[in-house]
Amino acid sequence: MSGWLAIAGLGPGDAALVTPEVTAALAEATDVIGYIPYVARVAPRAGLTLHPSDNRVELDRARHGLDLALAGRRVVVVSSGDPGVFAMAAAVFEGVEQGPPEWRAIDIRVLPGISAMFAAAARAGAPLGHDFCAINLSDNLKPQAVIDRRIRLAAEADFAIACYNPRSKARPDGLTAAFAIVRAVCADDRPVLFARAVSTPEEHLRIVPLPEARAEMADMRTVVIIGSSQTRVIAGTRFLYTPRSAA
Amino acid sequence: MSGWLAIAGLGPGDAALVTPEVTAALAEATDVIGYIPYVARVAPRAGLTLHPSDNRVELDRARHGLDLALAGRRVVVVSSGDPGVFAMAAAVFEGVEQGPPEWRAIDIRVLPGISAMFAAAARAGAPLGHDFCAINLSDNLKPQAVIDRRIRLAAEADFAIACYNPRSKARPDGLTAAFAIVRAVCADDRPVLFARAVSTPEEHLRIVPLPEARAEMADMRTVVIIGSSQTRVIAGTRFLYTPRSAA
Repeated sequence: MSGWLAIAGLGPGDAALVTPEVTAALAEATDVIGYIPYVARVAPRAGLTLHPSDNRVELDRARHGLDLALAGRRVVVVSSGDPGVFAMAAAVFEGVEQGPPEWRAIDIRVLPGISAMFAAAARAGAPLGHDFCAINLSDNLKPQAVIDRRIRLAAEADFAIACYNPRSKARPDGLTAAFAIVRAVCADDRPVLFARAVSTPEEHLRIVPLPEARAEMADMRTVVIIGSSQTRVIAGTRFLYTPRSAA
Repeated sequence: MSGWLAIAGLGPGDAALVTPEVTAALAEATDVIGYIPYVARVAPRAGLTLHPSDNRVELDRARHGLDLALAGRRVVVVSSGDPGVFAMAAAVFEGVEQGPPEWRAIDIRVLPGISAMFAAAARAGAPLGHDFCAINLSDNLKPQAVIDRRIRLAAEADFAIACYNPRSKARPDGLTAAFAIVRAVCADDRPVLFARAVSTPEEHLRIVPLPEARAEMADMRTVVIIGSSQTRVIAGTRFLYTPRSAA
């Protein structure tokens, strides 16, 4: 029997947002690997070994999964949201490229999931209804200057901007800098969505005009979507959206 | 009994990629509205009226759904992929904003789906594993100059670029222009993914270096992902990916 490795997206939290494809892979798995809170979302059962690990060990985790798959195990590496968006899929492929040649023959599949930003956008209306970008504000793996430059060019391009990892204890000020850069490019009152823990009991949404947006409105579980110049709040509703046409 | 309207994403095609949330909404619906091939993916049943309509009538379709919901019907407006990405959610909210005040009180929900670009990325590896943007290349609703400018700024920002609606009979040359703009900014051989009809029987994937990318490799059912400067093909595999770290 030959092993395989699937990198699966568990979606933002609600079980109703997990695809049947992911559910089927978990039912066939012998091993589940991932960050502690994501592995905790997988129901234990006989024959399934859970391997929870801490944050910031993505590459170790990827190599562990590839080793197990090569040894004939059926491995699911879990991410929240979509595994291809600032998550485990890139880490696994980094592991494959840097690893022994036999890893390139492993049966690897990426199983998409509902991303945090699309779950957030859906709950609040359609802020990503036209051209948009997604930027990881974490400076763990890239220089702050690269982040700043991308934010500025994204604002000049008039994208709606989805900000992942907007804020942590180690980086209290990155989001403040991002807001300042956007404001410097476009001095207007486009709406900003703070969407925390969408589809979980801790869900909290807030929409404020850009001049009133503050980094303190976000934490590690928040996706921040900065509207484009066209993004509008519909008065009398809880919705914002970006029209299909550009100015 | 009060009506409601849900804007639901059917994913890229495979039933295993439809969320349980969307399946449940379809099971409760009295009316399903959408573009002909998407409505065709919904199984007929007693008590369910299907309203297929042609392309390019998105706003009429939205208003029809809002009218029905106000009259007490349980309406699902279907999109392929995710409804919030170049799809029906924005059209419905345009309808709400432009429509009679009573439409603002309708119970509206957006039910996210697996987007075409994330399904394509998953099948091919993880090309959207770091900062990226999504641009609709159709000039139906925006000037070509806006598209060109966004492509140029996205290339300068070194985003991976997901191109929606890359090519149609009416616009045979937009994608050629996009490739030329990216090449002018970055004269390298970053990989380009052409992913057609992912998760359907017509699925076809192709990866070529940017200098060899041709508009003829895409059609209306293709998502094109132009890698960033960091995006790499893993030799000896069918995968490309964008590492988590920036240069």
